[in-house]
Amino acid sequence: MLTPEENELLTRTGPGTPMGELFRRFWQPVALAEEVAAPDQPPKRMKLMGEDLLLFRQSDGRVGLVEPRCAHRGADLYFGRNEECGLRCVYHGWKFDADGRCVDVPNMQPGRARDNIMKTARIRSYPVREWGGQIWAWFGPEGMEPELPMVEWALVPPENRYISKKLQECNWAQSLEGAIDTAHFSYVHRVLSEEGTGKPVYLDKRQQWIHEDGAPTFEVIGHDGGLVMGGARRADPGELYWRISQYLVPNHSLAPGTFPGEPYAAQSWMPVDDENCWIFTVTWCPDRPISDEELERYDSGRSVHAMVDENYVPHRNRANEYMLDRELQRTRLFMGITGLSEQDAAIQDSQGRIADRARETLTPSDAGIVQFRKLVLGLARDLQQGIEPPQAQRPEVYACHSGGAVEPEDVSFGEVLERRFGHPTAHATDLLPGRQAAE
Amino acid sequence: MLTPEENELLTRTGPGTPMGELFRRFWQPVALAEEVAAPDQPPKRMKLMGEDLLLFRQSDGRVGLVEPRCAHRGADLYFGRNEECGLRCVYHGWKFDADGRCVDVPNMQPGRARDNIMKTARIRSYPVREWGGQIWAWFGPEGMEPELPMVEWALVPPENRYISKKLQECNWAQSLEGAIDTAHFSYVHRVLSEEGTGKPVYLDKRQQWIHEDGAPTFEVIGHDGGLVMGGARRADPGELYWRISQYLVPNHSLAPGTFPGEPYAAQSWMPVDDENCWIFTVTWCPDRPISDEELERYDSGRSVHAMVDENYVPHRNRANEYMLDRELQRTRLFMGITGLSEQDAAIQDSQGRIADRARETLTPSDAGIVQFRKLVLGLARDLQQGIEPPQAQRPEVYACHSGGAVEPEDVSFGEVLERRFGHPTAHATDLLPGRQAAE
Amino acid sequence: MLTPEENELLTRTGPGTPMGELFRRFWQPVALAEEVAAPDQPPKRMKLMGEDLLLFRQSDGRVGLVEPRCAHRGADLYFGRNEECGLRCVYHGWKFDADGRCVDVPNMQPGRARDNIMKTARIRSYPVREWGGQIWAWFGPEGMEPELPMVEWALVPPENRYISKKLQECNWAQSLEGAIDTAHFSYVHRVLSEEGTGKPVYLDKRQQWIHEDGAPTFEVIGHDGGLVMGGARRADPGELYWRISQYLVPNHSLAPGTFPGEPYAAQSWMPVDDENCWIFTVTWCPDRPISDEELERYDSGRSVHAMVDENYVPHRNRANEYMLDRELQRTRLFMGITGLSEQDAAIQDSQGRIADRARETLTPSDAGIVQFRKLVLGLARDLQQGIEPPQAQRPEVYACHSGGAVEPEDVSFGEVLERRFGHPTAHATDLLPGRQAAE
Repeated sequence: MLTPEENELLTRTGPGTPMGELFRRFWQPVALAEEVAAPDQPPKRMKLMGEDLLLFRQSDGRVGLVEPRCAHRGADLYFGRNEECGLRCVYHGWKFDADGRCVDVPNMQPGRARDNIMKTARIRSYPVREWGGQIWAWFGPEGMEPELPMVEWALVPPENRYISKKLQECNWAQSLEGAIDTAHFSYVHRVLSEEGTGKPVYLDKRQQWIHEDGAPTFEVIGHDGGLVMGGARRADPGELYWRISQYLVPNHSLAPGTFPGEPYAAQSWMPVDDENCWIFTVTWCPDRPISDEELERYDSGRSVHAMVDENYVPHRNRANEYMLDRELQRTRLFMGITGLSEQDAAIQDSQGRIADRARETLTPSDAGIVQFRKLVLGLARDLQQGIEPPQAQRPEVYACHSGGAVEPEDVSFGEVLERRFGHPTAHATDLLPGRQAAE
Repeated sequence: MLTPEENELLTRTGPGTPMGELFRRFWQPVALAEEVAAPDQPPKRMKLMGEDLLLFRQSDGRVGLVEPRCAHRGADLYFGRNEECGLRCVYHGWKFDADGRCVDVPNMQPGRARDNIMKTARIRSYPVREWGGQIWAWFGPEGMEPELPMVEWALVPPENRYISKKLQECNWAQSLEGAIDTAHFSYVHRVLSEEGTGKPVYLDKRQQWIHEDGAPTFEVIGHDGGLVMGGARRADPGELYWRISQYLVPNHSLAPGTFPGEPYAAQSWMPVDDENCWIFTVTWCPDRPISDEELERYDSGRSVHAMVDENYVPHRNRANEYMLDRELQRTRLFMGITGLSEQDAAIQDSQGRIADRARETLTPSDAGIVQFRKLVLGLARDLQQGIEPPQAQRPEVYACHSGGAVEPEDVSFGEVLERRFGHPTAHATDLLPGRQAAE
Repeated sequence: MLTPEENELLTRTGPGTPMGELFRRFWQPVALAEEVAAPDQPPKRMKLMGEDLLLFRQSDGRVGLVEPRCAHRGADLYFGRNEECGLRCVYHGWKFDADGRCVDVPNMQPGRARDNIMKTARIRSYPVREWGGQIWAWFGPEGMEPELPMVEWALVPPENRYISKKLQECNWAQSLEGAIDTAHFSYVHRVLSEEGTGKPVYLDKRQQWIHEDGAPTFEVIGHDGGLVMGGARRADPGELYWRISQYLVPNHSLAPGTFPGEPYAAQSWMPVDDENCWIFTVTWCPDRPISDEELERYDSGRSVHAMVDENYVPHRNRANEYMLDRELQRTRLFMGITGLSEQDAAIQDSQGRIADRARETLTPSDAGIVQFRKLVLGLARDLQQGIEPPQAQRPEVYACHSGGAVEPEDVSFGEVLERRFGHPTAHATDLLPGRQAAE
């Protein structure tokens, strides 16, 4: 439960908000690399943390993320021409490069006056980098950019990963909370039965354990990059099935399902505004390409990767009630909505555009959510006091893993982490040649 | 004419508003019985007096009207499962019954903590009853429920009545004002001529009298349940045609057209919010079933019963300007809009979402409207002072009639009421076996 | 650059705003004459400077512009009947004429009470005149109407002019600024090349000069009716190509393109509200009918006259991004949008619904814009102090011309005006028989 003030603090990320400032102390994923594939293509409209922006790749390959407003008389550079290393306004021909510098003012005659204008007439721009199949941007104070976070998917060859993007029609925080709450798997994603049989059918034992134990015990350990969380369910007699996820400050999580040999999965939340966000979903294998079978499944949009249109809007969305099928709900799927990603989207959106956290009744399995809020609110408040978030300057703390494990009942969570990941908080020390691993 | 403050007082019925509190002292019709026909069907979204709610019939046949928000983390119970005597949230499986009690918390392990949560985690719910083909709800203080109002249509066999529901896209009060203003019949519902003839054609003498005398004299008598109103028009020489309607506190009216042997008609207004309302329209015969011919007419949607879609939205509505046909208006129908109900809807909506009553010029035939405002504003103000509305606890005052009569010019309104209804305010004492009739 | 306060002052024209009051001191063009062609046709909804109104022609040919609200109970007179010299409300038959006087109250019996109501129950109405193919209205203080402005297109025979109307989806002021900024022609309207050739193709030398010199020098001279502005570009060696436009207080401009023998062009901006405006565009010849060829071009909608639908909404508009064609933009049209009018609309709308003038970097070629703001803001402020705008009472100052000229480099702007128009500020003294020409 949060007070209304805390809820505001948690959910608002526009310019000047405390949480917005915290977000702006970290490199942020803003687009898929495919969105600015070729130079000199039309600029692409973006809205990120409440700011309207244009994304474009200029002739020399550099990517720009700039405000869409010409410095002359405020015409929209979206209508502009991306040509010869800059974006040219079509009202009077002014031109700006990826750094926001004014590089041409053709409606003035050459001379000192024009030179002065070209020196001072800038448009707002944000540094960007390509990293792991994504475009990352720095919205923070100039010159304070840290190195990019050492997320594993950025370290593997492109063929080892699969990235997608989708619109989520609610605030970033409640969607992230859905991801670090592993208890919901027993309900939101429950398969009731195969058609006609009336009996539950499980793809594998894991699915059975998840569905048969709807009240997992939950443990949370803080670390340098965020939180590692374990939800334990009864498995075969004498054993527990652990699902271990990560929350990485401020807006990333690693998913709990991976068994050794299977692809890892991560999600990042980029607020469009306070009532919508982009979710970037990555699945990757450290040591092999994504298989054809996996690729086919991801492309089909029924996994963590959603089925989306050309604007990355899911086919099943708020407007069509996620194509909720009451007959399906009665007979086959607990939720009546097809698709793992779509089920998550529906239930998270259903909490409202911005979930009201003042009227909650939390349970032990909400422990991860409680710790997440405490951590990120603390960092935002610290920053208001001038204390920078330590994670921002330590890219190596983002090198960590998540996944599932089956262990005897008497093995502690800490020991499970050591056995499964070789590290007490599942940090991937082997990913970091020449670096000091997180502790 | 009302001051802006009085207009606010009259029109706002959200939680906590004075008029909203008055409404909540009476059983309110909220849905047709057909809307929750079978148990264990999906819950139905409702918005009533500004509150979002779910309506459902649970396994044992009981109907619930509850807030749609799970007490755990606020997920929308609309996506939930109506099963085994309760509505189950699909996020983590919490379950609530028709009384709003929490009856299952499966994401917690059994024990005292879970017991405590199940005891305290309630969702808001409102008692409901089925009565006269409708679902009625009690939004008032717990335990203060009176008996249901003795409206005649609830006392007759189902085959003797016909009920419909339609959306009206304006505030409840101005629509009700349209119903108790019988002068508008001479204009809004006027038929100009049959096609081609250029001469007015009347179905019967009543229609002719209505159209030929557009300035009826108007009389209003207060009674225990509200107001009885008579509009008198010139009929055959030496006679008056009386159209007598009822206003029943706070949001019902009985229509003035009924001649002996014809069906009665009533309307109730249930605010969706302050800019929309549901109108429930009932036509019934005390002593015989609705005839096939009447049924056909009602089904066809050109009477007081509108033609609506599956969501009870009229085919002719604000968005399509009620299919106003200017050629029809020029030649055949004064208003150019087809359908009695549709004509009323159009002209009432046209006053604005919430009519501004500060710029009116009222006439003698608006006497019923003036008295209605005075009565209902007085009751709302009294309630603010702690004085309960007396009608609420006297269900028998709702047993009354309305209709038309033709009488010699020198017969007073009081005498007309006695002759036509056998009672000075048209109360139906015979409907109330073993009860004290209203006085 | 304007302060936010100045920008508000410039852009808001609703009732009671300073700029709105200034507008209301001038006859304003509100509709094409064709919009109220025949008597007794249905009233037409208008929104003008934030006010909802109805426009209709009554039986005797007079045109009324009245508020749409019946004085009785506020029903919408749009649903009313335009018959027998007045607009009749269909709720209770009240009737109002073009002067807003109540001429019938049929729901009351004859007598003093009804007489009193008919005397006092007025609806707001505005005097209108037909002038130059347009309906003009007077929104100012009763009795202060000046004579109509002596715009030339109103003085020529109907066959000598072509008038159109179109919706512009932004504030009036920035659209007018687009018209008096002749520098934008070199960019917004630039043709890159004919298909396939890769080389620019010019229709005539003027187009070539415009495109080859994107930094015209700009001169502005104030006069009794507003401003005359000249933009000079390099033409053939030793010559300048002058494009001379007019700004006429408070919301008209005359276009700079006309060479002798060609039609003149003017535009007037009528705010719908602060975020939309109507543009009336007139092209006319003083001494000959519009030719068939010109007519065909105007009808085709690729000139200053836009292609619009039956509600005067351009086919290419904000919602469809003006059918921006990126391939066209890459190869043939600098802006990628077809149509002179459509190019202007797109770039002006792109500045926002209301352009923010606090973040501008103005250049010498924006001199006309700077003077326009200064002049019109000064008049609005003066009026707040009780000083009436002098132009309002001098209709003859609106008789002036605009157009292009080619002159040797050493001829001053004043001399160019004398040579081209025979008057130092291009006033058309010959248009004013018996009048004192403007000085």
